Amino acid sequence: MKIYLNDFSNAPLRVRIAMALKKLQIEEVHIDLERPDWLRHCPEFASLNPQHMLPVLVDGKQIIRQSLAIIEYLEEKHPLPSLFPPDAPGRARVRSLALMIACDGQPLLNLRVRNYLASEMSPQHAEKWLKHWMELSLREYEASLALDGVAGRYSHGDSPTLADVCLVPQMLMAQRFSVPTAPYRRATRIFEACIELPEFAIVAASTAVVSNA
Amino acid sequence: MKIYLNDFSNAPLRVRIAMALKKLQIEEVHIDLERPDWLRHCPEFASLNPQHMLPVLVDGKQIIRQSLAIIEYLEEKHPLPSLFPPDAPGRARVRSLALMIACDGQPLLNLRVRNYLASEMSPQHAEKWLKHWMELSLREYEASLALDGVAGRYSHGDSPTLADVCLVPQMLMAQRFSVPTAPYRRATRIFEACIELPEFAIVAASTAVVSNA
Repeated sequence: MKIYLNDFSNAPLRVRIAMALKKLQIEEVHIDLERPDWLRHCPEFASLNPQHMLPVLVDGKQIIRQSLAIIEYLEEKHPLPSLFPPDAPGRARVRSLALMIACDGQPLLNLRVRNYLASEMSPQHAEKWLKHWMELSLREYEASLALDGVAGRYSHGDSPTLADVCLVPQMLMAQRFSVPTAPYRRATRIFEACIELPEFAIVAASTAVVSNA
Repeated sequence: MKIYLNDFSNAPLRVRIAMALKKLQIEEVHIDLERPDWLRHCPEFASLNPQHMLPVLVDGKQIIRQSLAIIEYLEEKHPLPSLFPPDAPGRARVRSLALMIACDGQPLLNLRVRNYLASEMSPQHAEKWLKHWMELSLREYEASLALDGVAGRYSHGDSPTLADVCLVPQMLMAQRFSVPTAPYRRATRIFEACIELPEFAIVAASTAVVSNA
């Protein structure tokens, strides 16, 4: 297997955390899609993903795009340790929290949207957009945690799941965007519990290097 | 079980198609979130989903938000007929096509984004935005079909899957936005094959009524 990713984008971070939690060693190919000449550095990538988005997993002839599809595939091939609860309602809750970020949160804030905003709108409009959707995403995650009333060290119980795998990169992105995360107390407590684990801490450290660069 | 949805939005349509393909009878509660007084008509909904988005499935004490989490849950509880291929690589491909629309396509075009655009931007900017992201979403789906080179009547093989369940509402939304779909020949061929099936046709018909209203 071979995984195409970078060190700091939201969706690749999910897969890196999932790989670390599952103790999977997969050959990594790093691409910096913010560099205009990325195609020259990694010409094969253009034929792997028409979206030109990371991450992409290649397993033999199989090309798997979209971070959550990759993680579900890794879960099927390497079930333990699992990133999902053992019960169907628990799995549904974890998937719904994950999708809340992966569908309604991050895609409104990702690189290609930021590029579009930069080319089509004023900096004020762009900044307002990013802040609005980031805050809404964290507020809704927090409200879901409160409504569901499920206690635990992580988003669902006392083991990290796909929900945490999505939450942590979103919180790191909020920090990069200078959006305060403290008002989201449950999400912040879970984030802090996660980054005490080495599997999350490594990822948090690599994004810190990038945002200081 | 009880499902909260409406007749025309993208994510509820996915669940309606999935329920029809699986022959599931679930009590439906219809809410029109475009009406400013929806809360008065359905006060319990506010406590079901802090996102105030449809669909939501309630199964006993379990509240499941996010269309793809609902469909995965229905698949686990009622495995046949399956909306997923029998092999792990096939399931990964189907999930990646579905997420391509559910993450990177539809959330940039949904009601709350349209409301934000209407309040913050000129009609020209808003229209350009919707056209841009809708076209990109269809172009990338088409390019994935071409790159993967997997032949079949539907997006993956000769049975409808979660990928088609996501594609068809996106194509219907393109029609509502007056975005031409004919350039996407593979996607159009699959869309037409789908709506020959009654499970998809009913949904297409109900959105046509709405868009003519």
